[in-house]
Amino acid sequence: MKYCSDCAAPLSLKVPTDDTRLRHVCDSCGSIHYQNPRNVVGSISVYGDKVLLCKRAIEPRLGYWTLPAGFMELGESTSAGAARETMEEAGAVVEMGPLFSLLNVPHAEQVHLFYLAQMINPDFCAGEESLEVALFSENEIPWDQLAFPTVKQTLIWFFEDRAKGLFNDSSPIALRTRDIDPSERI
Amino acid sequence: MKYCSDCAAPLSLKVPTDDTRLRHVCDSCGSIHYQNPRNVVGSISVYGDKVLLCKRAIEPRLGYWTLPAGFMELGESTSAGAARETMEEAGAVVEMGPLFSLLNVPHAEQVHLFYLAQMINPDFCAGEESLEVALFSENEIPWDQLAFPTVKQTLIWFFEDRAKGLFNDSSPIALRTRDIDPSERI
Ligand SMILES: [Zn+2]
Ligand SMILES: [Zn+2]
Repeated sequence: MKYCSDCAAPLSLKVPTDDTRLRHVCDSCGSIHYQNPRNVVGSISVYGDKVLLCKRAIEPRLGYWTLPAGFMELGESTSAGAARETMEEAGAVVEMGPLFSLLNVPHAEQVHLFYLAQMINPDFCAGEESLEVALFSENEIPWDQLAFPTVKQTLIWFFEDRAKGLFNDSSPIALRTRDIDPSERI
Repeated sequence: MKYCSDCAAPLSLKVPTDDTRLRHVCDSCGSIHYQNPRNVVGSISVYGDKVLLCKRAIEPRLGYWTLPAGFMELGESTSAGAARETMEEAGAVVEMGPLFSLLNVPHAEQVHLFYLAQMINPDFCAGEESLEVALFSENEIPWDQLAFPTVKQTLIWFFEDRAKGLFNDSSPIALRTRDIDPSERI
């Protein structure tokens, strides 16, 4: 960030009055250009006992498998964004359930949120950002070919909690959450 | 957003290749400047049976009461941001608990996340963005002087769930969530 998006003048890094952090401040019009983390919203979409995964057609992690997910857009809610990404990347229509995992990825300036979702039929197809889409039972998950630590962790938690019967009874879903360390690699 | 923050050239609104939405695209260097919702992170900080509220010293809603909360910063996690805001606005040191509410505010391009938190001592003080900070028991909450719908809804849920004894037993906290409609006013 080098120039003011309001007036095109150069930006300086300085701490504004009543602030404690360096910000991009316009020397000409005085605008302060804040930067904040972005939400990545996605789904654990289930049909029967199988989970829907997408093989990425784009960088980063091209060719690796992911849960359908992407950046939340202006004007939508977290769960609506997760449903949209599931349609765009996997061509699947889902009934959105509760939030299941929230993973902070501070070094990537992202928060990842995954919702439980039920596919309403077995139809899916690869969207433009996917090379391939498929349903996997637990013993078929390509654990060494997953795209991101947040996807791997969410799938581990999902199968753990499903094995405990936590999705069958009427008790509330316990949100799973942790922070991802920069050193974590798949 | 009128000028490119990378090269200062004018921006155009257009749908990039392989995209479906209008974006701010630089006519000169080709940069695409995405805009995404921001997270507001805060706490329901409790001492004994009382909840910590701050009277806002800044617009919007100057003079109205809020839970301590603010924009999540780059490089921090959601819960670390909630703890930081609680210190900055209310001068309170807390032990962060689980996420309690997630409220989408699509028309404001925000997601509000409130964590349960325990004050480790009864000390607090008004930060620069607060006129006054105080502990309120349930029957003292200034319901008609609250700053935002997300704060009012979170407090209603908190007292409902506390009355049911949901914070006393060892069962997991059920995340409370809904979308705020633009028509909602306090
Ligand atoms: Zn400017
Ligand atoms: Zn440019």
